Amino acid sequence: MNDHFLRACQRQPVDRTPVWFMRQAGRYMAEYQKVRKKYSILDVCKIPDVAAQVTLQPINAFALDAAIIFADILLPLEPMGLQLEFIEGKGPVIHNPILNKRAVDQLRPVDEDAFRFSADAIRVTRQALDDRVPLIGFAGAPFTLASYAIEGGSSRSYITAKRLMYSEPAVWHCLMEKLTDVVLVYLHNQIRAGAQAIQLFDSWVGCLSPGDYEEYALPHVQRIFSSLQPTGVPLIYFGTGTATLLPLMRKAGSHVLGFDWHVQIDEAWATVGYDIAVQGNLDPIVLFAPLPEIERRVRDILERVGNRPGHIFNLGHGILPQTPVDHVAAAIEYVRKYSQRAQA
Amino acid sequence: MNDHFLRACQRQPVDRTPVWFMRQAGRYMAEYQKVRKKYSILDVCKIPDVAAQVTLQPINAFALDAAIIFADILLPLEPMGLQLEFIEGKGPVIHNPILNKRAVDQLRPVDEDAFRFSADAIRVTRQALDDRVPLIGFAGAPFTLASYAIEGGSSRSYITAKRLMYSEPAVWHCLMEKLTDVVLVYLHNQIRAGAQAIQLFDSWVGCLSPGDYEEYALPHVQRIFSSLQPTGVPLIYFGTGTATLLPLMRKAGSHVLGFDWHVQIDEAWATVGYDIAVQGNLDPIVLFAPLPEIERRVRDILERVGNRPGHIFNLGHGILPQTPVDHVAAAIEYVRKYSQRAQA
Repeated sequence: MNDHFLRACQRQPVDRTPVWFMRQAGRYMAEYQKVRKKYSILDVCKIPDVAAQVTLQPINAFALDAAIIFADILLPLEPMGLQLEFIEGKGPVIHNPILNKRAVDQLRPVDEDAFRFSADAIRVTRQALDDRVPLIGFAGAPFTLASYAIEGGSSRSYITAKRLMYSEPAVWHCLMEKLTDVVLVYLHNQIRAGAQAIQLFDSWVGCLSPGDYEEYALPHVQRIFSSLQPTGVPLIYFGTGTATLLPLMRKAGSHVLGFDWHVQIDEAWATVGYDIAVQGNLDPIVLFAPLPEIERRVRDILERVGNRPGHIFNLGHGILPQTPVDHVAAAIEYVRKYSQRAQA
Repeated sequence: MNDHFLRACQRQPVDRTPVWFMRQAGRYMAEYQKVRKKYSILDVCKIPDVAAQVTLQPINAFALDAAIIFADILLPLEPMGLQLEFIEGKGPVIHNPILNKRAVDQLRPVDEDAFRFSADAIRVTRQALDDRVPLIGFAGAPFTLASYAIEGGSSRSYITAKRLMYSEPAVWHCLMEKLTDVVLVYLHNQIRAGAQAIQLFDSWVGCLSPGDYEEYALPHVQRIFSSLQPTGVPLIYFGTGTATLLPLMRKAGSHVLGFDWHVQIDEAWATVGYDIAVQGNLDPIVLFAPLPEIERRVRDILERVGNRPGHIFNLGHGILPQTPVDHVAAAIEYVRKYSQRAQA
């Protein structure tokens, strides 16, 4: 197996930097769009053969070093009783958002039966991958799930979520406990089914001040990683807008910390310490630039990292739908080209 | 005159910390909503008596230490030939966004006649204020104006703006030059009319990586501040999501740097150096919290700053429309109460 990705997660030396891209299976690929003409996003997630097919599309198209199971960070919310729908052009919507203590009390406990589709998708995908590259499983982190569950969708200011947090901290933490329980059921289930690494997406945690993050989000993430540690699979923690949170996120207990493009990768790595691996951090919009500019920026990130083991090349956030597909292929080739030279 | 604000801008000692809030004149006040029933946002900006009336509403209601002229950061775009409209529930929209070099070439040069409404509004407001507190003038910074002008409105990813930047840097810089010229006409005009301080809002600059900020935005901001320096009025530079940009923004040449709530004010001040004054940085959502929580957080910011001169208390971004008005009053009182004690 191509184990560059798993080795880099463990900060072992590799002969070139492994690369994968968040949302590498997605709308920018014609093959994906073709599948989506027949199936909704939730269908793709829940029909194992279709999830596997879509997961493999970028693996077949590009020289990537890891696959990530096609799914959505919000899937843990559904079996708890939240009505999740993906609305074209608007994104995910929760039709019955959590507005008070009563709604938190009514959330249903969830066991692994609720996530059979996910385990099946991972099994089918592992088989189809045939050990070409490792398969990453994932979920949204509790804060990000809570903010969606409370706001009912994406938000600019997170007023409702923060108001609950500040006014009723006990209700907030009770909600976070319940979300953490479900995320753990979901992720342990993915690992048992064959996920070879786990990424926790705390996509919206960057709206919090460091003090709020430490008080309202971090303890729950710590519980997730400390429960997953004994499984032995590499654990990745990622958020955006987290420049000032990184020293705290570093305490969450993952093996790898994901960076967005707001930080310089060398400075951020020095800040969090070299005893943790890092992933990132090309601005996804750079993939819209002319090829020489993409080349220059890929090379810049690799040169900043140098020969230090424990770097996984990635974007600083997910690939955007309109990204030119040949630019994706080129960026991956630049990573191969310049990391081989750098580490020779 | 209450000169706490102006003294703090110059890092002179004050017997309590001055406080004003971005968007302190706005929808959270019933008085403002009443005016808006009769006038559109652009009308309020352009009818000097109405602009003055709205500017004074929060000064009459609260113990604030500065007024800021009612206007919009995008006003410099209009006389250049861009069709600006504020659409209820959607925000500002540019009906003819800049899509290519030709559109940049066609932008009209602007002289101070285009901004007579602004000078008049400032004169009327200064008279009405009768030196109770100083009056701040402002404009959007070139990057923020450019991103609106190109995207046609607010954006989540700034794909179009960044694509222009990366693909046609000469066109980008030409656009930024033109925007800088107009902003300078607009701000010099405000100062001549009586603005006693100037704030440059680079609201969306936080979408840039440090390298991109340095290359594509900073030189133009530097030109603005270096042109305004000889006027002697205090200059404030503010953006959000700028944690990793602050050391560069510090080089822009303002007297005061505004912080959002993502940074701890003491750490951020130490990073940029104590030879610049700072403004901030309460999360605007904290104003939705119960009063004791607001009190605790106002106090925390003041204690982090301690007795060091050169701090202006503010939010980390504008007041939100739904903010409870009594919480605004309380927060201002807490600043008075705890900064007096801290500096006794």
